[in-house]
Amino acid sequence: MINISILGYGTVGSGVFEIIRGNKSVITERTGQEICVKSVLDLRDFPNEPVSEVLVHDFSEIENDTEVQIVVETMGGLHPAYEFVKASLNKGKSVCTSNKALVAAFGSELLEIAAKNKCNFFFEASVGGGIPIIRPLVTSLGQEEVEEISGILNGTTNYILTEMTEKGTDFDTVLKDAQEKGYAEKDPTADVEGHDACRKIAILASLVYGASVDFEDIYTEGITKITDRDINYAKKLNAKIKITASVKNKNNKISAVVAPRIINSSQPLYSVDGVFNAILVKGNMVGDVMFYGQGAGKLATASAVIADVVEAAKNIGINTGIFWKADKVKLVPFEESVSKFFVRLSGNIADNEEKVEKAFGEVTKVDAGYNDEYGFITAPMTEGEFCSAAKELGNVINRIRVDGGNI
Amino acid sequence: MINISILGYGTVGSGVFEIIRGNKSVITERTGQEICVKSVLDLRDFPNEPVSEVLVHDFSEIENDTEVQIVVETMGGLHPAYEFVKASLNKGKSVCTSNKALVAAFGSELLEIAAKNKCNFFFEASVGGGIPIIRPLVTSLGQEEVEEISGILNGTTNYILTEMTEKGTDFDTVLKDAQEKGYAEKDPTADVEGHDACRKIAILASLVYGASVDFEDIYTEGITKITDRDINYAKKLNAKIKITASVKNKNNKISAVVAPRIINSSQPLYSVDGVFNAILVKGNMVGDVMFYGQGAGKLATASAVIADVVEAAKNIGINTGIFWKADKVKLVPFEESVSKFFVRLSGNIADNEEKVEKAFGEVTKVDAGYNDEYGFITAPMTEGEFCSAAKELGNVINRIRVDGGNI
Repeated sequence: MINISILGYGTVGSGVFEIIRGNKSVITERTGQEICVKSVLDLRDFPNEPVSEVLVHDFSEIENDTEVQIVVETMGGLHPAYEFVKASLNKGKSVCTSNKALVAAFGSELLEIAAKNKCNFFFEASVGGGIPIIRPLVTSLGQEEVEEISGILNGTTNYILTEMTEKGTDFDTVLKDAQEKGYAEKDPTADVEGHDACRKIAILASLVYGASVDFEDIYTEGITKITDRDINYAKKLNAKIKITASVKNKNNKISAVVAPRIINSSQPLYSVDGVFNAILVKGNMVGDVMFYGQGAGKLATASAVIADVVEAAKNIGINTGIFWKADKVKLVPFEESVSKFFVRLSGNIADNEEKVEKAFGEVTKVDAGYNDEYGFITAPMTEGEFCSAAKELGNVINRIRVDGGNI
Repeated sequence: MINISILGYGTVGSGVFEIIRGNKSVITERTGQEICVKSVLDLRDFPNEPVSEVLVHDFSEIENDTEVQIVVETMGGLHPAYEFVKASLNKGKSVCTSNKALVAAFGSELLEIAAKNKCNFFFEASVGGGIPIIRPLVTSLGQEEVEEISGILNGTTNYILTEMTEKGTDFDTVLKDAQEKGYAEKDPTADVEGHDACRKIAILASLVYGASVDFEDIYTEGITKITDRDINYAKKLNAKIKITASVKNKNNKISAVVAPRIINSSQPLYSVDGVFNAILVKGNMVGDVMFYGQGAGKLATASAVIADVVEAAKNIGINTGIFWKADKVKLVPFEESVSKFFVRLSGNIADNEEKVEKAFGEVTKVDAGYNDEYGFITAPMTEGEFCSAAKELGNVINRIRVDGGNI
């Protein structure tokens, strides 16, 4: 029997507790032995709930319990999660976490402590919720030179953009609706500004390139400036607007960005709608591989945590060798990134056509039926070049990067 | 250093040879040591090619080479692949194969021999080519009660159906084109009749349910009877025809089938086109998870073999515990499977309406503009019930099972 402790009985933590009871027989069969929740740490009490029998309020009880071999961290936030995880690893207890902020901030250090103590620091649930991505990247695609990872890594923003596309509603209305349905937080900043997706792509990039990709180095742009007019232009292009988080390796130069993009139906991410997430991995041998599923939700996320618990239970005393160096990856300066840009200018075509040609050369006009503005797509250019040209024009309403060769 | 041997220098075997050279540094880093191809078995000679330096013509040289720790089997076919694999495992050498026929026929026996000899029998490449599916099912979704697996598991048939849909071409024309492009074999039977997909779903089902699902027990129907008219009806329904292989577990009653189906855009498999494959897994906790990528192709398939080689190299002397029992899973008799059916009858609506109502009760008419036939969709019914009713009518041109609630 393997004893585990759960730190934090919130949404994910209680999901872990439930699945370990509900799927007991299959988990026991897969693990080769029974997994038993010996203690759950939470400041609150849960009288009359099954968890009350194993509830503790003091982390030191878990830290010093030599029978506890695996700790599940589902508290969220950096502190005291970091201190508790570090203490657990230092006691030789493997830790399985769903906490992306923790992994993005302290991943390399915690992985090193795990290796030193012959235990494991696992974090499948920190990216893509229930979608298996961390372990497949390491064990199924480890032989690949990964050229690119591009993902829809945030369900809230994907839901908002999907609703805006399907119902023609504006951002604020859909956000309010998403908050009512529980798909968006009261304070939606981390989601709608792209910070959540940014931490997730930083984790994937660190894992794949073997050194720390600092999320603070990644250019991140959210979806708050996307309007119904932008969506209508995308429709005219038989395309959709999606916020993607991506990292690319071109001749050992690594670049990363989180931003809304116009993508067309030839791209696998195009059909990923609603609260679903997907991660597209381009390997130099295997080509495109995509992983799709629920990127959030109590049971989906808890399921991913338990996959880690089973793996940790099968590797007691053995570090499985997942790591990345503390050294920071130097990303290509964002000004040098190349894209095509969809641009909207105030004023009609006659006001703009000449000066656009002067600033951008030949462009592709996009007509969505608005007479008070002029929409077009540029040739591929760097962010730096675009900024200069846009500044020169002075009347840019919005601009969205464009993926997809035939747009 | 880990020495491996490759049995069979055909498409996949030569791909393995190439990737081990081409991606040497990343493979060495992931494995923790260098992987070296010590010998390649093939009856042919390849003068002036790098492989000629390590080519052998006699399997016993590999079998008796105590330095060879891992054998890659990419010969295909049942014999002598089975004998060579068995002999290798009995010598304690792990085997990594891309040979679905071998796994579907002898999987449980070979897994047991591997366990006894503290080595591994891995077969990631046998299903879905380069798509990671076998290992994720075991290690990332092992904690799930899998309710259903449904996959587009054959790239040839998916390509044919996609071309028929996009270009309006008939089956024979597209097949000929696919053969010219190398997407279909000279003898396309195994693909177009569904036998290939059937072996693959049998492997996935055996893995997930822990006992042998015999591919010969699975009802299998190919795509040779699908016509351009069927495709046009599907278009009228905003749907596509896809051949899927699926297995379901409902209250511990397991059913499996390979057949063309009409599926709509609400289903993740809908957008999987061309030669791509995808496998949708429904877990009781995680919900829908989908894996997508190239289901065939030299380098994609070889990449999956090498993922297995890396895993085998990291587990020398340790069996990782993948197994299924030799006992056969008793599948639900196909006559009891329930579907809605899209049906085409000869004769116009006036000829048919009354007798259809008598045979099927209320149906949903589908009009694709043909005056010489009558198309409709039934309510859900068993295969047995459908057969009786269809027999009674006597004028069925074709029938295709329908998935998707809102069709």
